[in-house]
Amino acid sequence: MQIRVINPNTTLAMTTKIGAAAQRIAAPGTDVVATQPASGPVSIESHFDEAISAVGVLEEVLAGERDGVDAYVIACFGDPGLLAARELTRAPVIGIAEAAFHMAALISTRFSIVTTLGRTGIIAEHLLEQYGFRHHCRRVRAAEIPVLDLEENGEMALNRIIDECRRARDEDNIGAIVLGCGGMADLTGEISRAVGLPVIEGVTAAVKLAEAVVGLGLGTSKQGDLAFPRPKAFTGQFEHFSGLTPTGRELPKQK
Amino acid sequence: MQIRVINPNTTLAMTTKIGAAAQRIAAPGTDVVATQPASGPVSIESHFDEAISAVGVLEEVLAGERDGVDAYVIACFGDPGLLAARELTRAPVIGIAEAAFHMAALISTRFSIVTTLGRTGIIAEHLLEQYGFRHHCRRVRAAEIPVLDLEENGEMALNRIIDECRRARDEDNIGAIVLGCGGMADLTGEISRAVGLPVIEGVTAAVKLAEAVVGLGLGTSKQGDLAFPRPKAFTGQFEHFSGLTPTGRELPKQK
Amino acid sequence: MQIRVINPNTTLAMTTKIGAAAQRIAAPGTDVVATQPASGPVSIESHFDEAISAVGVLEEVLAGERDGVDAYVIACFGDPGLLAARELTRAPVIGIAEAAFHMAALISTRFSIVTTLGRTGIIAEHLLEQYGFRHHCRRVRAAEIPVLDLEENGEMALNRIIDECRRARDEDNIGAIVLGCGGMADLTGEISRAVGLPVIEGVTAAVKLAEAVVGLGLGTSKQGDLAFPRPKAFTGQFEHFSGLTPTGRELPKQK
Amino acid sequence: MQIRVINPNTTLAMTTKIGAAAQRIAAPGTDVVATQPASGPVSIESHFDEAISAVGVLEEVLAGERDGVDAYVIACFGDPGLLAARELTRAPVIGIAEAAFHMAALISTRFSIVTTLGRTGIIAEHLLEQYGFRHHCRRVRAAEIPVLDLEENGEMALNRIIDECRRARDEDNIGAIVLGCGGMADLTGEISRAVGLPVIEGVTAAVKLAEAVVGLGLGTSKQGDLAFPRPKAFTGQFEHFSGLTPTGRELPKQK
Amino acid sequence: MQIRVINPNTTLAMTTKIGAAAQRIAAPGTDVVATQPASGPVSIESHFDEAISAVGVLEEVLAGERDGVDAYVIACFGDPGLLAARELTRAPVIGIAEAAFHMAALISTRFSIVTTLGRTGIIAEHLLEQYGFRHHCRRVRAAEIPVLDLEENGEMALNRIIDECRRARDEDNIGAIVLGCGGMADLTGEISRAVGLPVIEGVTAAVKLAEAVVGLGLGTSKQGDLAFPRPKAFTGQFEHFSGLTPTGRELPKQK
Amino acid sequence: MQIRVINPNTTLAMTTKIGAAAQRIAAPGTDVVATQPASGPVSIESHFDEAISAVGVLEEVLAGERDGVDAYVIACFGDPGLLAARELTRAPVIGIAEAAFHMAALISTRFSIVTTLGRTGIIAEHLLEQYGFRHHCRRVRAAEIPVLDLEENGEMALNRIIDECRRARDEDNIGAIVLGCGGMADLTGEISRAVGLPVIEGVTAAVKLAEAVVGLGLGTSKQGDLAFPRPKAFTGQFEHFSGLTPTGRELPKQK
Repeated sequence: MQIRVINPNTTLAMTTKIGAAAQRIAAPGTDVVATQPASGPVSIESHFDEAISAVGVLEEVLAGERDGVDAYVIACFGDPGLLAARELTRAPVIGIAEAAFHMAALISTRFSIVTTLGRTGIIAEHLLEQYGFRHHCRRVRAAEIPVLDLEENGEMALNRIIDECRRARDEDNIGAIVLGCGGMADLTGEISRAVGLPVIEGVTAAVKLAEAVVGLGLGTSKQGDLAFPRPKAFTGQFEHFSGLTPTGRELPKQK
Repeated sequence: MQIRVINPNTTLAMTTKIGAAAQRIAAPGTDVVATQPASGPVSIESHFDEAISAVGVLEEVLAGERDGVDAYVIACFGDPGLLAARELTRAPVIGIAEAAFHMAALISTRFSIVTTLGRTGIIAEHLLEQYGFRHHCRRVRAAEIPVLDLEENGEMALNRIIDECRRARDEDNIGAIVLGCGGMADLTGEISRAVGLPVIEGVTAAVKLAEAVVGLGLGTSKQGDLAFPRPKAFTGQFEHFSGLTPTGRELPKQK
Repeated sequence: MQIRVINPNTTLAMTTKIGAAAQRIAAPGTDVVATQPASGPVSIESHFDEAISAVGVLEEVLAGERDGVDAYVIACFGDPGLLAARELTRAPVIGIAEAAFHMAALISTRFSIVTTLGRTGIIAEHLLEQYGFRHHCRRVRAAEIPVLDLEENGEMALNRIIDECRRARDEDNIGAIVLGCGGMADLTGEISRAVGLPVIEGVTAAVKLAEAVVGLGLGTSKQGDLAFPRPKAFTGQFEHFSGLTPTGRELPKQK
Repeated sequence: MQIRVINPNTTLAMTTKIGAAAQRIAAPGTDVVATQPASGPVSIESHFDEAISAVGVLEEVLAGERDGVDAYVIACFGDPGLLAARELTRAPVIGIAEAAFHMAALISTRFSIVTTLGRTGIIAEHLLEQYGFRHHCRRVRAAEIPVLDLEENGEMALNRIIDECRRARDEDNIGAIVLGCGGMADLTGEISRAVGLPVIEGVTAAVKLAEAVVGLGLGTSKQGDLAFPRPKAFTGQFEHFSGLTPTGRELPKQK
Repeated sequence: MQIRVINPNTTLAMTTKIGAAAQRIAAPGTDVVATQPASGPVSIESHFDEAISAVGVLEEVLAGERDGVDAYVIACFGDPGLLAARELTRAPVIGIAEAAFHMAALISTRFSIVTTLGRTGIIAEHLLEQYGFRHHCRRVRAAEIPVLDLEENGEMALNRIIDECRRARDEDNIGAIVLGCGGMADLTGEISRAVGLPVIEGVTAAVKLAEAVVGLGLGTSKQGDLAFPRPKAFTGQFEHFSGLTPTGRELPKQK
Repeated sequence: MQIRVINPNTTLAMTTKIGAAAQRIAAPGTDVVATQPASGPVSIESHFDEAISAVGVLEEVLAGERDGVDAYVIACFGDPGLLAARELTRAPVIGIAEAAFHMAALISTRFSIVTTLGRTGIIAEHLLEQYGFRHHCRRVRAAEIPVLDLEENGEMALNRIIDECRRARDEDNIGAIVLGCGGMADLTGEISRAVGLPVIEGVTAAVKLAEAVVGLGLGTSKQGDLAFPRPKAFTGQFEHFSGLTPTGRELPKQK
């Protein structure tokens, strides 16, 4: 099966890193293709960045549909464009925030999130509410590092994340930590060893959930509110979406 | 004061209608400018439409900032791009869904929503949850009319909406009805007379809330998670956002 | 239009101050009449004070109905008698706590409340729950000053409020502060300048919301649970309520 | 021990009936004194009635304090004045709505409420939310009978209540029914036999809970937000509350 | 009436202590029989201990049914086997955690819990959620003492509990404290005097609630989801449950 | 890797069926061992059955630990003994109810549950609340078939389930259906084809989630409230648990 891991920002180094982490965790027979939009922000640190990045995510899903992709991962912790992406395909689409929350809930009763900048904490809070994990998460913490510091000041960034994870461990009465940025996909092992708690990272979690859904013969429901969008006219730079009629590939039958 | 009422879709007739309804309700001294994005879907009936339309909404807010706009209204019931738009300005930005919910909560204890297509009900449900009105809303109903039928089959559409509103009145134990589409902005009076319940429509509600916020000398908080986005590089069709450093106009001091 | 701003306590200095703040914020054409009950506590700092004050609030609404008032504001942060008052009139009735919460939710994602005495915090908590803003409010704080200190020890009171607001700003991860007492209606500007965060005060917020509701041609729903009370006998000091059959003035039609 | 059962309305027949039901259920050694305010509505069917009745409830508690009462029951299903009453005494004060909810939760997982008029349903909904029983209650139903019909058209009223209880039993997937009016205190047995489900009535439930709290050596907490109100001036018809400094009797020590 | 107070663990000293506390608080005419399972853990400090102890609880209820018991108390703060026990009898079954929560809610608006080991806090959290008291409880605290220290190192244990209760009083903005372990049943008086706040202990609370339910002529609902279990085959060490057809004694009629 | 799929009841035909469904869905390299307790009920249809079955589940986990099992599935829709089982091992333990809920939330926004007997609906409701999926589930429905009818009256049972699933599809505004019994593990394909909606079955979902957790190098957190139970004495038929000191195998390091 092929999983398209979409890095919603346009920083190639991050896409490469995310793709490597995804492939490393993938099952034999799972082919990870990591992509990034042709257009968009180099990092996602605000609602604005996230809204713009959603367009690129959707373009990547449409491209994936043409390529016969079996599952998608949206590799930014805000899950930008998640429900819209689901409308475009019969394949499963997994956001890394939701993936991490689901996994954390399976191995612990309460967890904390350690993200990059404090200003993005509200995005995580809103997702926790929408997904149902508000009470599973004790606290949303930030290491206060810009996303691209994960690329450019890796050691400093790692140290600050570890420090914040240790505070979470010592103060929050939790069983696990969720890392709140796709750019941390390669740090899980090092952080978990430094902190001594299970550390859940969303990219890898999402890959395994995508494999799980596909393995069940399931895909995004096309009944009701995630059905393919009604075809219609678009104007201007989005004119190419006019008359869009995705139909998706038939899924294998549910056993 | 100038309010920019942004119709997130690109159907001029709807923009015109919304603008007229907004101006009609505006206070003396409020100048309504109704705009629509240069690019985007002709109607918004899915998460996909909504995600794409958010870009145009944000472009319109940035244009408004150059024009010295005092307040913004996002005139689609999904409030597309609301939090992102707020990051771009010191002015208030009001979504029509939130506006309608706030107003309905001030004049009744429980309300129902009557929207266009059933598939968009989930968007309203998620907003109710995020905004805190889950328990104020008894039921999300749909008249099952495509948005553009409001333009093209107006009488049929109106009749179906009235029918659904009457069912809400008779079955839902409510004190008010919220209309769930910006394209219904001119129908409030007729529906309220036909149904005999207060009917809240978001475009007009948002205009009055925008005037209220401005009148208080308040605007979008620039502290914390709605601060201006950090400037950064964007690529491709979004390159013009690179280095974006909105600063907003100074608000009049709070009295 | 005429707004009757009801100070539920019987301290004339506070009524005057509240009235002035309300008139200052009101739109041209809005006539504010500030009143206080003939009977009741000189300040409201407990459930007991609040329950007693509700009677006076209701008397004032009934008096307002005779005077053809267009909207009412209940200027105590516990919103005493709010739903009962709504039953008595077709006009909108706005509590200052709800008004402040609604406004705070429009300009920030999370806020804290700074009130007078800690013992009244539970009143705010219950209102947050009932109105749906529980998750929007990070923390209810108290400056631990009796209400009348706002009149009699103004500078000391202001300093303590500013101190507590600064703690809220520094510790609570918020975008705005809600002032939790009608007696702070004249302090908004000074506090917001001292703290550097938007400060929302309920009396002024309620005036603008009342104007907004009236501007929309809306009023309290008379369908269902806010309909006029059934007329009946009352005994003793409340005998004058016997057979009470308020009918309200016709609202202008919804446009 | 002496329990003062306060009927918040001023209909003597109802006070007598409530008192009889309370005494019948009371433990040996419990002396029930049923009282009603000197002033107030003859029945409580709206927020307005409830707000006015709260004053009488508080007067009755103050009278009870002078008489050395050991516990209070507020015998109207809206629990009018409950938190205010608790501020006035060290003795427990039990509302019949809360009492019925607590008891229903001990013998079933889900219950429905059958009340008098539909318009009072919102009062029950708000109490369920505040007390924490929102999810335990499947549905709030109304027999659509005015409260005084329980006195004046007893058989008709009983039949309508039984009919509505049967619908609750057949449609709501519940284990118990809560009767939503103090005036139904004498109907429990007949209704439970007719419906075949446990029927919880608040007056009797409250008496037993009051006995339970007193039996534990507990009373209303005087720490924090239920402490005695701060003494202050009251004006007009409430002047006699000026300087009120209730101190309560010492409770027996907790064992 | 006879109340069977079931200590779910098998430490006789604790059973004796619990029984004595229960009898001391019981009404004249209430006969407390304290029992413990023939099989099970000597203390309950984990989900595992709790799951095993539930079997013994159920055996004790079945034994009680043969003895004509009128009410049951499950005297461990996790309420192990509570809903299962209710299925086996028409009599009321009261867990000490729920009992303490109900009582605390009647005398205060907010409380904190002080339990033994931190690891059992999650059990209390889950019960608060299920029972509806999540928002009434400010904080779950632990004195970090193993349960049997209450027997073997009584003074040290008491001191640590008092210390933690004082921290709760000083930091949590509460009106009452709930003790989170059946083994503290004899400490209520001493702790409440040391801390100066009402202290609610579950065993005694449950006895009074059991008396209250019985006094109302109520018992566990046999309609719907708490009906007697369907008889069926059991194997192995549980074979004696095969064909189990409890029918319970007839309750006295509801008055 | 080896997954031990524990059928908590003692009906061999069901164990075999569940094991076959689990093995069929398992990845290459996953070895499913389906087991059932030596002691317990032949089916689980009540809280009582569930409480008794938990003991057998825990025995099976302990046996699995001796065998070096990599992951556990608890194959009854009430997830009996789930948190207790997690305490006993470093391996992941997945309940089929939680598994189905997680999967349903990944492919739809709202789902309904179709279970066997109505009386077990409350178990699903409590799990939805505890796990955070209350708002994702529109309705809990029952086909009203005893569990063993799935073995003994297969065709009749299937037809009733399909009928109920169709009602869910037509009335509930959902995107997916969750089957509420482990005994339906072989029916997913047939039901999904008959109903035309994605159908999620917990046994298969749990196997894929178990593989996912193991694939991530994760296991049950041993920090905090899911740590191994403290060793202690047990008496009677549970004496063999005395001094139990599970330590689990080292997990592979997180990558």
